[in-house]
Amino acid sequence: MPEPAPLRLLSLAAGGKPTVGIEVGGVVLDGGRLLREVLGAEVASLSDVVVGGLCDDAPMAEVAAAARGKKAAKWHLTGPVLLLPPVEATAKVIACGRNYPAHASERKKPLPKELVFFQKPGSAITAAESDIVIPSWYDGQVDHEAELGLVIGKRATDLRPETALACVAGYTVVNDVTARTLQDADIKRGWPWFRGKGLDTFCPIGPGIVPRREIPDPQALRVTCRVNGKVRQDGATAEMNFKIPQLLAEITRAVTLFPGDVVSTGTPGGVGPIKPGDIVECEVSPGVGVLRNRVVVARG
Amino acid sequence: MPEPAPLRLLSLAAGGKPTVGIEVGGVVLDGGRLLREVLGAEVASLSDVVVGGLCDDAPMAEVAAAARGKKAAKWHLTGPVLLLPPVEATAKVIACGRNYPAHASERKKPLPKELVFFQKPGSAITAAESDIVIPSWYDGQVDHEAELGLVIGKRATDLRPETALACVAGYTVVNDVTARTLQDADIKRGWPWFRGKGLDTFCPIGPGIVPRREIPDPQALRVTCRVNGKVRQDGATAEMNFKIPQLLAEITRAVTLFPGDVVSTGTPGGVGPIKPGDIVECEVSPGVGVLRNRVVVARG
Repeated sequence: MPEPAPLRLLSLAAGGKPTVGIEVGGVVLDGGRLLREVLGAEVASLSDVVVGGLCDDAPMAEVAAAARGKKAAKWHLTGPVLLLPPVEATAKVIACGRNYPAHASERKKPLPKELVFFQKPGSAITAAESDIVIPSWYDGQVDHEAELGLVIGKRATDLRPETALACVAGYTVVNDVTARTLQDADIKRGWPWFRGKGLDTFCPIGPGIVPRREIPDPQALRVTCRVNGKVRQDGATAEMNFKIPQLLAEITRAVTLFPGDVVSTGTPGGVGPIKPGDIVECEVSPGVGVLRNRVVVARG
Repeated sequence: MPEPAPLRLLSLAAGGKPTVGIEVGGVVLDGGRLLREVLGAEVASLSDVVVGGLCDDAPMAEVAAAARGKKAAKWHLTGPVLLLPPVEATAKVIACGRNYPAHASERKKPLPKELVFFQKPGSAITAAESDIVIPSWYDGQVDHEAELGLVIGKRATDLRPETALACVAGYTVVNDVTARTLQDADIKRGWPWFRGKGLDTFCPIGPGIVPRREIPDPQALRVTCRVNGKVRQDGATAEMNFKIPQLLAEITRAVTLFPGDVVSTGTPGGVGPIKPGDIVECEVSPGVGVLRNRVVVARG
């Protein structure tokens, strides 16, 4: 018997205000009502769920049982909703560079002995189903980079690998969109990676957050990217050079992670250019989700 | 007659909860009460003041008149207070590199034709009078970099230089503390600047925010740094390669700034090493303030 599809937490705008959605088997439930009735918790947004520790195994087991139960129909969410990013625009997004051998190799770089990591600004975060907007002043190459993202649920400093995974609230999909021509020019002159990695909308995240307990082994996932339906990237999280516990330890030795922050774990081989009009689908499977965005060029 | 000392907004913890302080002529007033009685505004923190647009010239003129008025004594803040950073730990801090000729020169780099900028993580922010903590695993050089900081008051995208300054709520002092050995090693191998610039506590900001109207010309300020009382840096904001309106235009062409974000405008010549036990004082004068921190090494 196949395992049930993971439960996914969504940040939605319904009737003009943020709402938590709980998606199971293609159906979206009203997470605010479900969490109130099942856990007695009042949440105004998906951030409240993450920061409030409700993604922990114990509360999420109750939520999952209710959401998959026979009476779940009473929480069905009706009416139009808009998908929002699963984390706030003030989140710290730490992304790992060259963490898959095939990607280091295609960038003609050695596999690093220390973890390479950098920050993408929260202002770059955009939701699934929204647009990746290339600024009108930029005429260089823009690349997709599909990645498994970790949403942090607990403040984390100096983690030991043995216990590091406990700070993860859940999993998501990140497209570490890169203005490659700009990044390469900046690297060549010893400048920071910031502009090439940080342009507005260059950090799609979503569609939602799959709580940690729903993914038995995060190193047994597949990370793919399709552009206009054609497969560009197809890697396995088992290939990571620094596995998740090690990379969390390396990052938190330098910087404290806060609840609601995101760690993006690096991209497999196959990165390549995207252009206006393209539909980019980054997927982490099974079950973490498909992050689909259209590429456009800014007006003016 | 000398101009009156600028009014400074402080973020304080008094009795365990955050409070807004308003400092004029060495006296600290209860900003929460003053803002309520003068403007009818309810604020729970200095962030509320910045994000709520209360640093704008019109409300701040009323606040300044009241704070300097004869009846100001009724707002005197009594009891012990702890100084907090003037911005949130979720702030986006954008720092400019090599924006003063003397610093580019001492780093043996050409003065860049494009603005060099990067992000320091909000987790690195620490208050005036707190400690700069060098991690126990790092035995390289740590440098001070005194800078004028801009606290953003309005969401800003694609600013034109002519009107850019309107997004600034006020001014502060930033010490862009740099793990130089790490930064130089990372630059040499084409890696991001992130670790060298982003370690926890490596971004002291404070002591407070001086509202924009209190500083007639931000390009006529002096930026100094003293270590154990000895002057290390002494520059003028007039020396900036990219002046404030230009640098705001350059940054917002790439990334949107949010209210509460910080732009640090680069450091003058004279950067140098600091070591455990040192007292570092970065000052922007007249009136923006003295940002004093002690350097310690992490235990364990």
